[in-house]
Amino acid sequence: MRVVTIIGSGMMGSALTVPLRYNGHEVRLVGTPLDRELIAGLKENSFHKTLKRWLPEGVRYEYFENAEKAISGADVIVSAVSSFGLDWFRSTVIPMLQEDIPVISVTKGMVDMPDGTLVSYPEIYEQSTQKKISFNAIGGPCTSYELADRDPSHVTFCGRDIRTLRNLKAIFETPFYCISLSTDVRGVECAVAMKNAYALGVTLAIGLSYAKEGREIEHYNSQAALFGQSVKEMTELLELCGGGADNLYLGVGDLYVTVFGGRTRKIGTLLGTGMEFDKAMEALTGVTLESVVIAGRTVKAVKALAVRGVAKTSDFPLLMHIGELINREKTVDIPWKAFESEKY
Amino acid sequence: MRVVTIIGSGMMGSALTVPLRYNGHEVRLVGTPLDRELIAGLKENSFHKTLKRWLPEGVRYEYFENAEKAISGADVIVSAVSSFGLDWFRSTVIPMLQEDIPVISVTKGMVDMPDGTLVSYPEIYEQSTQKKISFNAIGGPCTSYELADRDPSHVTFCGRDIRTLRNLKAIFETPFYCISLSTDVRGVECAVAMKNAYALGVTLAIGLSYAKEGREIEHYNSQAALFGQSVKEMTELLELCGGGADNLYLGVGDLYVTVFGGRTRKIGTLLGTGMEFDKAMEALTGVTLESVVIAGRTVKAVKALAVRGVAKTSDFPLLMHIGELINREKTVDIPWKAFESEKY
Repeated sequence: MRVVTIIGSGMMGSALTVPLRYNGHEVRLVGTPLDRELIAGLKENSFHKTLKRWLPEGVRYEYFENAEKAISGADVIVSAVSSFGLDWFRSTVIPMLQEDIPVISVTKGMVDMPDGTLVSYPEIYEQSTQKKISFNAIGGPCTSYELADRDPSHVTFCGRDIRTLRNLKAIFETPFYCISLSTDVRGVECAVAMKNAYALGVTLAIGLSYAKEGREIEHYNSQAALFGQSVKEMTELLELCGGGADNLYLGVGDLYVTVFGGRTRKIGTLLGTGMEFDKAMEALTGVTLESVVIAGRTVKAVKALAVRGVAKTSDFPLLMHIGELINREKTVDIPWKAFESEKY
Repeated sequence: MRVVTIIGSGMMGSALTVPLRYNGHEVRLVGTPLDRELIAGLKENSFHKTLKRWLPEGVRYEYFENAEKAISGADVIVSAVSSFGLDWFRSTVIPMLQEDIPVISVTKGMVDMPDGTLVSYPEIYEQSTQKKISFNAIGGPCTSYELADRDPSHVTFCGRDIRTLRNLKAIFETPFYCISLSTDVRGVECAVAMKNAYALGVTLAIGLSYAKEGREIEHYNSQAALFGQSVKEMTELLELCGGGADNLYLGVGDLYVTVFGGRTRKIGTLLGTGMEFDKAMEALTGVTLESVVIAGRTVKAVKALAVRGVAKTSDFPLLMHIGELINREKTVDIPWKAFESEKY
């Protein structure tokens, strides 16, 4: 039995209580200052209002003012903030952490540096502190609902040290939560971050067919063409990020699941019908769109790399079109012909 | 204006009349001996009964007894038989063909040699004749319905000679039918053939969730895990086939679209609920299952390569499980843990 403290009681942080309690660990779920209402509800009857599931018995719920106490004695810290909470976690939580207690983050994403380098969140965390803390991350396709329902999921834990990763795996792994390990942090994080941009790209075709049909009917040749083009561009992006091409399958599996549901599909579909970006965002009011943020960063990074002569924007016609959409330069006009290639 | 003769009036052969007539070519659609009824219907009123679409004006419909006349003077021959018609095309049609008139085939698939080599259909055609005929093929995700509806599609024409491919592209390409070109025939054909096996694999998860929920509700983490695993195994298979890894995106785009519909999804879903293979086939009576044939060949090929020490079956846990299902050795029992990997 180990002690695991999860910071952030959003859907994924809360769903992780399921495999952890399944394995009999002591689990402390600490809300961020934005999670007060969720924690109050959970303390009352362990029903999670946004996850819409009962959390397992035996989880300890804490408001953020008790974070330090909840962190004390933990064997593992889980960072379960959204990418919008990244800076908060760096400035507020990391100073509370002890050396030699590993952190594992569920936040997916990359940050673009001015020179076009894309840096993963574990790397950002490392740079925030002088303490010797092992920062690891969870990548791969896993929706919180299905994890909470104990449906089979396969994720990848990445970090610098394979022994730390093996220890983490031993704590989290269950028959329904399968875990691969990789020390290629940049590769894993880049692969799973990129899928945000491309899920928006693939779902444009859904909007296209809705607009053509005048009702919610999907066409698949166009989706498949965009999916294929996404895989092609993701392969190139992985190389630019300095991540191994063998991580592609992680991003592609994640792309597949992201296309099916959630907020990214919604914005892509709306944009695909020809709606302007601001109107589409208005229609989705109240929804945090990490995919748009990540897509914007990826576009900026590729453009910066192109200026340096390291990348060619013409190798990324779909990503560039996504950029045009979210930067309000155009409405949908998929550059099909730019996807054609010749190999001989 | 060119003359294009299509042999086989099934759904895909018939859908190709749409881009060809859009470009104003003379199109002759010749039924195989199995297509008599379809041709009779088309001669009457140009409505295609299985495609459920009106074919464009100006197509000439011919019974197979007039094949020789229909082939005479053609600039391009399209082979649009199913993989079950391959031998018939070799023995009956190829002897009628003239040298220097290129053939392009829509049949997807590979044939396994006893040593485990997977050979593409254009290669099989080449080996059937001493005539100097250029055999080319169409790969990539394209359902006949949507092609007939002029929805955007992106395919790849492959063949040995890039100039021949460019000429073919000039004949077939339209704003809605985008065409990439590749001289890596083995790579393209292998990529698109493999997706048959893996589409069956991914859709097992659909059956799993139907069985778990007792109704038609899909779960996505498990589908994504199988999709990711498919991409991983397809990458390895491409290498074994001797095709370039850069063809992966073709197979993945095609995998994506195949999962959504049609016969492969049906058999995968039924097997995923735990049904035995023979019962599942019975439930789908009357349906030709190319995917099962292709899956069986791929399984056999990998096993043969493993015997020769060229491949390890443990690198293909999903494919091997598909083999167990279709060879009636097991009912569904997805080897989730075998998908886990360590990279360091």
